[in-house]
Amino acid sequence: MSNHNEVAIKIIVTAWQAQNKRLDDLIAKLSDHQWNTETAPGRNTGIYLLGHLTAVNDGMISILGFGERLHPELEEVFLKNGYKSGLAMPSLAELKNYWQEINAKLNAHIEKMQADEWFGRHMSVSPEDFAKEPHRNKLNIILTRTNHQSYHLGQLAYIN
Amino acid sequence: MSNHNEVAIKIIVTAWQAQNKRLDDLIAKLSDHQWNTETAPGRNTGIYLLGHLTAVNDGMISILGFGERLHPELEEVFLKNGYKSGLAMPSLAELKNYWQEINAKLNAHIEKMQADEWFGRHMSVSPEDFAKEPHRNKLNIILTRTNHQSYHLGQLAYIN
Repeated sequence: MSNHNEVAIKIIVTAWQAQNKRLDDLIAKLSDHQWNTETAPGRNTGIYLLGHLTAVNDGMISILGFGERLHPELEEVFLKNGYKSGLAMPSLAELKNYWQEINAKLNAHIEKMQADEWFGRHMSVSPEDFAKEPHRNKLNIILTRTNHQSYHLGQLAYIN
Repeated sequence: MSNHNEVAIKIIVTAWQAQNKRLDDLIAKLSDHQWNTETAPGRNTGIYLLGHLTAVNDGMISILGFGERLHPELEEVFLKNGYKSGLAMPSLAELKNYWQEINAKLNAHIEKMQADEWFGRHMSVSPEDFAKEPHRNKLNIILTRTNHQSYHLGQLAYIN
């Protein structure tokens, strides 16, 4: 049975890493001009989506209990506001560095996680609520963030 | 421990159903005109993506061992060819019906699955390969198809 737990963790973490790699591949491939293009007329630019996905991954550091976010300043620009906010953004080069830095930190912690830890509560749910809703665990954070990333990868494909 | 298996299954199946519901919601909301619009200039139309996602869900019936696909004719138009193929498509009304019919069948089987069955091999992997690669199980089919659906839902959002 415990073997099944480990298989479940493996498929979820593998899917997460596969989506991250798709964005890594876009980073290696797209030109600065492409990143600054809207993904469709009147829709998010590539650079905004890169910042958005970077900010979401940064938030995972704290939600998963891996420590403090590395770039909390991204929240205002890329989570609380849209791409037309006029707020100053980090440069494309900075965002690419943040993306790698944040994912390196996430993956270093993910590698060390024990099976049972994945089924523990994440940091945005109280112990009381978690007792009633055991699906609100760390593994579920990986799963929902993977889907969120896929959603925006489908949009980023349009500037490729 | 077996409780953890069930939690893992629950979060994966819940994510799958949540993505399906997002497409249900689009079906309830978008006009025929919107479905016939490209999601971005030169990109898949809404109706093509609806057919594509319906064909993928139909394929899940056989891959998960739930029986024969209900609409194998969708494969040629929506999996093997792109939206500009010129092949005759089912009407929008037919596709919406197929979507519901296929998902009803999938969900009826999913409801009855026992925890251990989810960790069994899917029908596209041989017993020999599965012995070496136990992550190629039925649960992983749900997971990867959920991500695929999220990817295209991000694109369908552009005609909303």
